[in-house]
Amino acid sequence: MEYTIQTSVIGEFDDVVDATIAALEDEGFGVLCDIDIQATLDEKLGEEFRRYRILGACNPPLAYEGLNEEIELGALLPCNVIVYETDDGEVMVSAVDPQQLVGIADNEALDSIANEVHERFERVLDSVADELEPSSEN
Amino acid sequence: MEYTIQTSVIGEFDDVVDATIAALEDEGFGVLCDIDIQATLDEKLGEEFRRYRILGACNPPLAYEGLNEEIELGALLPCNVIVYETDDGEVMVSAVDPQQLVGIADNEALDSIANEVHERFERVLDSVADELEPSSEN
Repeated sequence: MEYTIQTSVIGEFDDVVDATIAALEDEGFGVLCDIDIQATLDEKLGEEFRRYRILGACNPPLAYEGLNEEIELGALLPCNVIVYETDDGEVMVSAVDPQQLVGIADNEALDSIANEVHERFERVLDSVADELEPSSEN
Repeated sequence: MEYTIQTSVIGEFDDVVDATIAALEDEGFGVLCDIDIQATLDEKLGEEFRRYRILGACNPPLAYEGLNEEIELGALLPCNVIVYETDDGEVMVSAVDPQQLVGIADNEALDSIANEVHERFERVLDSVADELEPSSEN
């Protein structure tokens, strides 16, 4: 099952991360959590891994609305956008599909919020692809 | 659908958070992300909200194994444990059910990892309940 929406671009990894964070901010998301998987796996396990960041994105008004509908929703938040190097040297930007994620809760009251986050994430990916050189795979 | 496993306890909120973090560490999870929802909603929206923390827990060997099976898995990581005040003055500790969460990916190779995280989260909740006074609702 597809549980992410993606775009791949050609560019410096850090530039793609910066462009992603800026595009998220333009859509009202703060990055509340920024995990450097490569650094974490190196530090904790001494294992080499590709460059890989997990950006936990939160739109406060939508989160507030969702939490008031369902107090347990925080177990599924924030919604992640991941950025990682692909095997062929491009950079993938991939957002969790909020409709799939929030779908676990099986609460119709959350559908419109998930749809709204989905639309905003689509615009974030479009913006990153516009700013950088899109991969031929897109 | 139930997408969390829970225990509620009687105690000071901060003590419960500390006990949860310690129990996660005992099971090999680092807290890579610690979001104070009450503070975030106050700062960003000026809205009052109950005390509510999202702890993003990561077990590095299991995360490494999972990411090697499925590169997109980071979109669903870390696995959250939330701690929040209930309406009746107790403190709920609630872990996302990793089988439900990772189930979105529909990848059988991840099943054993999700089961392992589930078992560890069960022990984390038992440990928190043992350390603090369990609620009569448990």
